[in-house]
Amino acid sequence: MYKAPIGEIAFALKKVADLEPAMEKGLLGELSPDLLDAVLEEAGRFASEKIAPLAEGGDREGTSVNEGVVTTPTGWKELYADWVAGGWNALTGPEEYGGQALPTSLSAAVFEMWNSASMGFALGPTLTVGAVEALETHGSDELKAAYLAKLVSGEWAGTMNLTEPQAGSDLSALKTKAERADDGSYRIYGQKIYITYGEHDFTDNIVHLVLARLPDAPVGVKGISLFLVPKFLVDADGSLGRRNDVFCHSVEHKLGIHGSPTCTMIYGDGSIDGEEAGAVGYLIGEENRGLVCMFTMMNNARLLVGVQGVGVAEAAFQMALDYARERRQGRSTRLAKGAEPSGQMSPIVEHPDVARSLLTMKALTGCARAIAYACGHATDMARATRDEASEARIWKERANLLTPIAKAFATDIGVEVASLGIQVHGGMGFIEETGAARLLRDARIAPIYEGTNGIQAIDLVTRKIGQSDGAAVSAYLAELAETVDAVRGRNAADFGATGDALAAALDDLKEATAFLARALADKDMDTALAGATSYLRLFGLTAGAVYLAKGALADTGRTERTHLARFMAENLLGETAGLKRQVIAGAASLAAAQAILQ
Amino acid sequence: MYKAPIGEIAFALKKVADLEPAMEKGLLGELSPDLLDAVLEEAGRFASEKIAPLAEGGDREGTSVNEGVVTTPTGWKELYADWVAGGWNALTGPEEYGGQALPTSLSAAVFEMWNSASMGFALGPTLTVGAVEALETHGSDELKAAYLAKLVSGEWAGTMNLTEPQAGSDLSALKTKAERADDGSYRIYGQKIYITYGEHDFTDNIVHLVLARLPDAPVGVKGISLFLVPKFLVDADGSLGRRNDVFCHSVEHKLGIHGSPTCTMIYGDGSIDGEEAGAVGYLIGEENRGLVCMFTMMNNARLLVGVQGVGVAEAAFQMALDYARERRQGRSTRLAKGAEPSGQMSPIVEHPDVARSLLTMKALTGCARAIAYACGHATDMARATRDEASEARIWKERANLLTPIAKAFATDIGVEVASLGIQVHGGMGFIEETGAARLLRDARIAPIYEGTNGIQAIDLVTRKIGQSDGAAVSAYLAELAETVDAVRGRNAADFGATGDALAAALDDLKEATAFLARALADKDMDTALAGATSYLRLFGLTAGAVYLAKGALADTGRTERTHLARFMAENLLGETAGLKRQVIAGAASLAAAQAILQ
Repeated sequence: MYKAPIGEIAFALKKVADLEPAMEKGLLGELSPDLLDAVLEEAGRFASEKIAPLAEGGDREGTSVNEGVVTTPTGWKELYADWVAGGWNALTGPEEYGGQALPTSLSAAVFEMWNSASMGFALGPTLTVGAVEALETHGSDELKAAYLAKLVSGEWAGTMNLTEPQAGSDLSALKTKAERADDGSYRIYGQKIYITYGEHDFTDNIVHLVLARLPDAPVGVKGISLFLVPKFLVDADGSLGRRNDVFCHSVEHKLGIHGSPTCTMIYGDGSIDGEEAGAVGYLIGEENRGLVCMFTMMNNARLLVGVQGVGVAEAAFQMALDYARERRQGRSTRLAKGAEPSGQMSPIVEHPDVARSLLTMKALTGCARAIAYACGHATDMARATRDEASEARIWKERANLLTPIAKAFATDIGVEVASLGIQVHGGMGFIEETGAARLLRDARIAPIYEGTNGIQAIDLVTRKIGQSDGAAVSAYLAELAETVDAVRGRNAADFGATGDALAAALDDLKEATAFLARALADKDMDTALAGATSYLRLFGLTAGAVYLAKGALADTGRTERTHLARFMAENLLGETAGLKRQVIAGAASLAAAQAILQ
Repeated sequence: MYKAPIGEIAFALKKVADLEPAMEKGLLGELSPDLLDAVLEEAGRFASEKIAPLAEGGDREGTSVNEGVVTTPTGWKELYADWVAGGWNALTGPEEYGGQALPTSLSAAVFEMWNSASMGFALGPTLTVGAVEALETHGSDELKAAYLAKLVSGEWAGTMNLTEPQAGSDLSALKTKAERADDGSYRIYGQKIYITYGEHDFTDNIVHLVLARLPDAPVGVKGISLFLVPKFLVDADGSLGRRNDVFCHSVEHKLGIHGSPTCTMIYGDGSIDGEEAGAVGYLIGEENRGLVCMFTMMNNARLLVGVQGVGVAEAAFQMALDYARERRQGRSTRLAKGAEPSGQMSPIVEHPDVARSLLTMKALTGCARAIAYACGHATDMARATRDEASEARIWKERANLLTPIAKAFATDIGVEVASLGIQVHGGMGFIEETGAARLLRDARIAPIYEGTNGIQAIDLVTRKIGQSDGAAVSAYLAELAETVDAVRGRNAADFGATGDALAAALDDLKEATAFLARALADKDMDTALAGATSYLRLFGLTAGAVYLAKGALADTGRTERTHLARFMAENLLGETAGLKRQVIAGAASLAAAQAILQ
């Protein structure tokens, strides 16, 4: 069973993502090292003791829908109530609406634990966080007054309604209609698919944020508006009014996250007796500017989806390590040399091949964790420095840069680590009761939703490396280089060839970055896009490996982090040379071979 | 829906695995190019039209057991009867027992198609093939007379019973007991787990091949004997006699291959009223020499499991390509340049990132297919040249060398390609009804059973590269080098940098091979084992890429194969440098970091 690695998480926050110096300067509000530890400890206990025990049952039972009413797995409604009562939903919400306004980085750390315990359960609150942010940033005072406090506390839940059958990655194809009503509200008509927690029994009300198009809207993404559509209308006194014309039509039968209802939602088809058809909606932000508001939700949601990858990877590592320490098969060389009585079998963790798998799992999880926390911290720093425009911009661009990497690299890692976890279990890994298979099934959605990892890579290449004419990415690479220099300067035997390996990877990343910048300057989009996915992985591996080494430098008392950073550098960074080659020399053969696919 | 790629398969057999020259020399018995095409066409039709339509229902329905009686999915029993009636089970069986004695390579090709259509269905016959081989090679004349013809025809099915709860990868821990009976037969007592198709309703009788230990057997693997244990005893006239004391206790709830019953089997617990406890078994081969017999089954079974990886990968590629051609999202650069009317969206296959995924799927599938067929062909050539000891040994060692690569590389590819297939589908990929998720669930077992891929890598390093003092692997690498030289000699623009990329990969493989040979000579097992998995992948990627190029050289009429070989070489072979580094420089950091796992 999952045990929250709170020491590891606290270290990554303080020493790797640099919360420690920020707290010292008072940039993170009331957050102190002690408070941070206390929050992590409480969250870790809740995740391990309350959520994790309900994960397997929730997966087995799944969700069902009957005449628009969705039933969640046994115990999950009570679990959610318990979780809300603990104040966990309010962790990052604005203080004026009852939130604790704690940093995004800490939220990412806590969400990692919820996701390790049960990704299907943690997914619901992830959406509410996004709704709070969008409403806080772009909503009118009336909307905030009516909805925000209850979304912050978790008494009500939020959703994101983007996808339609013909509009997935490409939102320009949205068809859901919004019509202006006389009272200043709107009526929404249309169908949305893949709506996570679109309907459930956790809360009395559900607040849908819905992208739709006004009759006179420009074509494409510039004609999309964002609306708040509550399941139950809210009366002037704040009490629940009549049922709105939005219903769950069906829930999907999915590979994983079975406890999380993935709904097809029907807006405005006239399902309410005695009422005219049309779901009542309220505009968030300006008409036709919905995409801007949605991106507010999405940036944070993307980070938290990246955190799902970290969470599942951590859970998979723990499960595999526990098994490998218990399971005995064969004789390791240590046994063969007579260290244990003859006839006995070794725990499989002693076999080099199994150890390689486990260390790969641990190293990649650590890389992804560090990137995600650093991304969250950049968001927090942008907020903390908002009075100094130039510094805030630097941090904002840092967050922008790291978001697609945190999302895509970490979720790819989630799948990879969960699959390795199955392999470590041997035949047991394929048996559902073991739990390792569930982690792979759950992990597999994360590279897809909140913008596929391909979309993330395109975002990184086409929007992020060009920020401030390349200054943002250059500054980040220079920071990584400082750590690499420090490793080399340390000259410690335990680091082995870590410094050289990191330097080589960083050179690969720099070279690939420069190549893509030139391709973009030349408007050679085919070349830039062909290497996008490889570039993102190259970026993630290099940054992650540097972060592991940074942790090792900061943890002078123990050698474990140095060993792991060295394993990462000497064993797993060899991939970067090939990735660089794909970026700078792969486009021509890709373009030529595309004819095969026609 | 799956369409058997018979042109592609025929080409890989004839031109890449070199069946064409072997047929010309009359080394493959009655097999002619025309017969080969005819068999593939008929098999392809059966796979596509009969098996594939029952795959999804079989997955959804799964299997169940009730008082020892296993029910397979609706229609599968009839499908099996249909398949047997078509003579498919008898394809490779010995002619004197009604088989067609066709080559192993052709069998691998045909099994690829069964597995593309439904891995869960194809798995049963895979086990029967192994039972036929073991019985044919090691069984007494009486046993052959009683069982072989019906196993060859498929009227009866075979199983392999190795694993016990404490004995998975390490068979020395087997506890199942065998006792000698007065009539020369044996009585078997014990429990076996993970027995594929251990019980089912396809056939009137099931012939279990069971590893067990005699009371006076030496400890360890030198005290294991192999027994034939029929579900129903066979009377002297060949008719079915009484029920034997072997029963299915339960079937596993698995991640995938739901249509295939994975059974816990109980031997000899006295479940037959009026009979003494003990399952009646008959010795195959000699007492305490069971492992040798079992390896006869396993080598072939390992190849056929590798073929499962190829089959699933092919199915995943086809499904993803079909989707990517239909699904329209966004505008590719071709569209943006005005090649299609504005406002229209592009099929996603035109986006470079999607094309990269699809080409990666196709290239890796082609690599794995070529390796598997070449492995099968080496087995056939060893048989064809058995009168010339030195040549037969060369081929036998070639088959030995390629078997672990065919098994592990191809099944890893199966998982990787199936996962990419989900990604290409976006959100649809996570919905079970689409079918892409099932392919990943099915594929995930293949790296585990028939010897985990870690075991395959250890086998490759510790037993195979040392064959004939390294001459076997050297000769194989020299053959690969010939193809690389031919690519360079061709000097065709379409090949781009293929020749150089192949040469670099082959150098990496040679260097890693030499390093491991030295480590083994120095008895430095920790170093050799640490790099085993990386070495196997390095081997598979390099050999596979060379085979793609070999196909391109042989197919002078079209450029498709050249484009694919070039894509493989320029985009996917960059991994080899990092893999080599893991082999030759990764062991020290792995060993140091192992302390973290204690």
